[in-house]
Amino acid sequence: MASVLRHSAKFTSGISSSLAACARNGTACAFPCHAFRHRNSSTSSKIRVDLDSSTGVAVMTLQGPPVNSMCMDFLTDFAISMEKLELDKNCRGLILTSAVPKVFSAGLDIMEMYGKGPEHATVFWRAVQEMWFKLYSSNMVTIAAVNGSSPAGGCLLALSSDYRIMADNPRYVIGLNEAQVGIVAPFWLKDNMVQTLGHRQTEKSLQLAQLYSAPDALKIGLVDKLVPEEKVLSTATETMAKWFSIPDHSRQITKSMMRKQTIDKFLSNRETDINNFANFVTKDSIQKSLGTYLAKLKKKKA
Amino acid sequence: MASVLRHSAKFTSGISSSLAACARNGTACAFPCHAFRHRNSSTSSKIRVDLDSSTGVAVMTLQGPPVNSMCMDFLTDFAISMEKLELDKNCRGLILTSAVPKVFSAGLDIMEMYGKGPEHATVFWRAVQEMWFKLYSSNMVTIAAVNGSSPAGGCLLALSSDYRIMADNPRYVIGLNEAQVGIVAPFWLKDNMVQTLGHRQTEKSLQLAQLYSAPDALKIGLVDKLVPEEKVLSTATETMAKWFSIPDHSRQITKSMMRKQTIDKFLSNRETDINNFANFVTKDSIQKSLGTYLAKLKKKKA
Amino acid sequence: MASVLRHSAKFTSGISSSLAACARNGTACAFPCHAFRHRNSSTSSKIRVDLDSSTGVAVMTLQGPPVNSMCMDFLTDFAISMEKLELDKNCRGLILTSAVPKVFSAGLDIMEMYGKGPEHATVFWRAVQEMWFKLYSSNMVTIAAVNGSSPAGGCLLALSSDYRIMADNPRYVIGLNEAQVGIVAPFWLKDNMVQTLGHRQTEKSLQLAQLYSAPDALKIGLVDKLVPEEKVLSTATETMAKWFSIPDHSRQITKSMMRKQTIDKFLSNRETDINNFANFVTKDSIQKSLGTYLAKLKKKKA
Repeated sequence: MASVLRHSAKFTSGISSSLAACARNGTACAFPCHAFRHRNSSTSSKIRVDLDSSTGVAVMTLQGPPVNSMCMDFLTDFAISMEKLELDKNCRGLILTSAVPKVFSAGLDIMEMYGKGPEHATVFWRAVQEMWFKLYSSNMVTIAAVNGSSPAGGCLLALSSDYRIMADNPRYVIGLNEAQVGIVAPFWLKDNMVQTLGHRQTEKSLQLAQLYSAPDALKIGLVDKLVPEEKVLSTATETMAKWFSIPDHSRQITKSMMRKQTIDKFLSNRETDINNFANFVTKDSIQKSLGTYLAKLKKKKA
Repeated sequence: MASVLRHSAKFTSGISSSLAACARNGTACAFPCHAFRHRNSSTSSKIRVDLDSSTGVAVMTLQGPPVNSMCMDFLTDFAISMEKLELDKNCRGLILTSAVPKVFSAGLDIMEMYGKGPEHATVFWRAVQEMWFKLYSSNMVTIAAVNGSSPAGGCLLALSSDYRIMADNPRYVIGLNEAQVGIVAPFWLKDNMVQTLGHRQTEKSLQLAQLYSAPDALKIGLVDKLVPEEKVLSTATETMAKWFSIPDHSRQITKSMMRKQTIDKFLSNRETDINNFANFVTKDSIQKSLGTYLAKLKKKKA
Repeated sequence: MASVLRHSAKFTSGISSSLAACARNGTACAFPCHAFRHRNSSTSSKIRVDLDSSTGVAVMTLQGPPVNSMCMDFLTDFAISMEKLELDKNCRGLILTSAVPKVFSAGLDIMEMYGKGPEHATVFWRAVQEMWFKLYSSNMVTIAAVNGSSPAGGCLLALSSDYRIMADNPRYVIGLNEAQVGIVAPFWLKDNMVQTLGHRQTEKSLQLAQLYSAPDALKIGLVDKLVPEEKVLSTATETMAKWFSIPDHSRQITKSMMRKQTIDKFLSNRETDINNFANFVTKDSIQKSLGTYLAKLKKKKA
């Protein structure tokens, strides 16, 4: 709560400039913006939120080029946006999408894990957990409109939503490929994937760090639907209408019942998970592994 | 036990008239009735049981027009019939089917939940639990011969059986659509569905209150087999023979091992579940929601 | 540990004769044997191990004609081989295969369960548990190269591996058919199968004691891949390379996370499971059932 109140000034002051942003970038603004509030729209913002109070649908657009990587700023923005929407009685559903071409999100910003001490690791990992937890336990109907590649943390956003629509482009990939980089998906994300794909598919996917093309992702149930890229957002809107046809209270109780076990386990082991991560990621061997990966990335760009 | 003994006179006295009933309605009497006992066969009875001691197969026919709705009488009849069969050493298998055209069962009688106090809700819900528990934990091989639509409580009967055969008619539907009416499937039925369909399919099915046509139900594994309507019962008999080819004791131990976790969880949380239901269903908002639904049903009929 | 040390002399002394064995039976020796150690290769040995230190892959060949049945000797050999390989830093992966034509393994030796007292049952069952546990919890990448039929205990080996490749021959079958003989798959093997096939398929498979042809096994996910029989071992080698492309530490942590719950449950209930088995298998009725089965087998052979 505190964080929401602390940022309320920012929310208010951001409205005028985000109107301009909305006009500049019409494609990501799927809903008529008669009535909405943006949490902010400064050029430094990683996330834009457009809530249409007449439909009850908010669109959260990830807009952190080049790859919507999840740095601390992104995670903080995300958590605040979620809190705000969750408390807003006008908002019943949330669509997540990206304004960055070809990329939904490339996942966690490795710079937040490289060359930092255990204190930073602790703060960072708590924020990562919070992003997942807020989305996974949301009372809203949450739909991921995956209009680009979505590895690791990007896949986390999709998995924790209620429904996943992906652009029908075999060059876009999705999956939890953490093991490739020498790190490991946390248990709560593993539990989330097991619920979605089943145990066997998850065991293989995580151990082999598999990224699936959109068609393959549909085959194994990692996404629910493929549509042409230009229809991802409109299909999300149509799908939302279907979910809205069920009374909110019975849908919410059902969702909470379905996700209770995973949430309870997460909450009971949250601090242990943070400590494990901080110990693990600050190890010399893991730092070396991340360093090698970063060097590769730099070389690729150059 | 007490209830069985209490009703034993009724069981005996019902034999002659049920013979007549069996003759009147030949289609539901799949097994040669050389040796059988009926619990009763009065015209008020909601359920008829035909046990063929020579084959070890009992057929339980739901016969409460117009839709085999599960009122208190139905639930009591069901529980007594199950206790009786479970204790009968001549009975190894049970087939559930309907004598009502086009309907297997429409599920719980909403009149038992509407305009009644918490005491009634408590008694009613315990009886609903008992129906599920007796079938889910049965030592017998249980086969649902789903020869008509089977929403909500009808689907409960199918899910808690060992095998589900449905009439291959796309106009017949099956599923747990509780959320549509503003109520919620209980956790033990959710667990039962998760075991059958997996977590993801269940999450979607319950939140969207989905009813599946017979072909769609086969696709997602909600039923095991589709056959032409006139062959539903004979296929059930053939399938029973296959299950009987395994020694009873190893099959029963295996079944009990497979269902133990769900049964243990149910038994540990049974009273809480009853209290939750009684509190929930007597809320003004839920009563209003049920009232609206009942009004729609009446309008439809008129 | 003790058992490994106790057998170390045997390990060393076995090298020369196993070289000869490797030459004699080239087909099972898929890897160039530049650098390897065999635990032994006497003609009485049930299991041969060829470790290629240059690739990090060990091939464990079951070689106990006529059907690689799992007697006490087999189980002891298996456990020792696994301990040895697990401790060997040169070994990253293990391929299991059979040198016996048409049979991967027919499973537990029923003679170890027939006409023996509870003490023997206790020792035997602990060894069966140990075989499963060592394979299921292995740090190595484990691949079952199923080049023949694989019922019961044979299927156990496949299920507890990381990946299952089977010869594409519809006459080869695989499955847990314990119930047919009047015994029951233990809970930990059931848990392993539920993870692989899901709850519903396992419930049916175990209760009906189903053996699946190779093509059917692929369809339900009991094996991961079918290839022509002569390519089973080479495909296992190729697959191993794919698993080796992931850093060992992240793959191992992930595997351990995926299997933790089943392992914890096994370890907590291990002694109870042993007692249950000893009580069960020494019952008159079960002994009679096993006797009947053995008589049938004898008749078949004659």
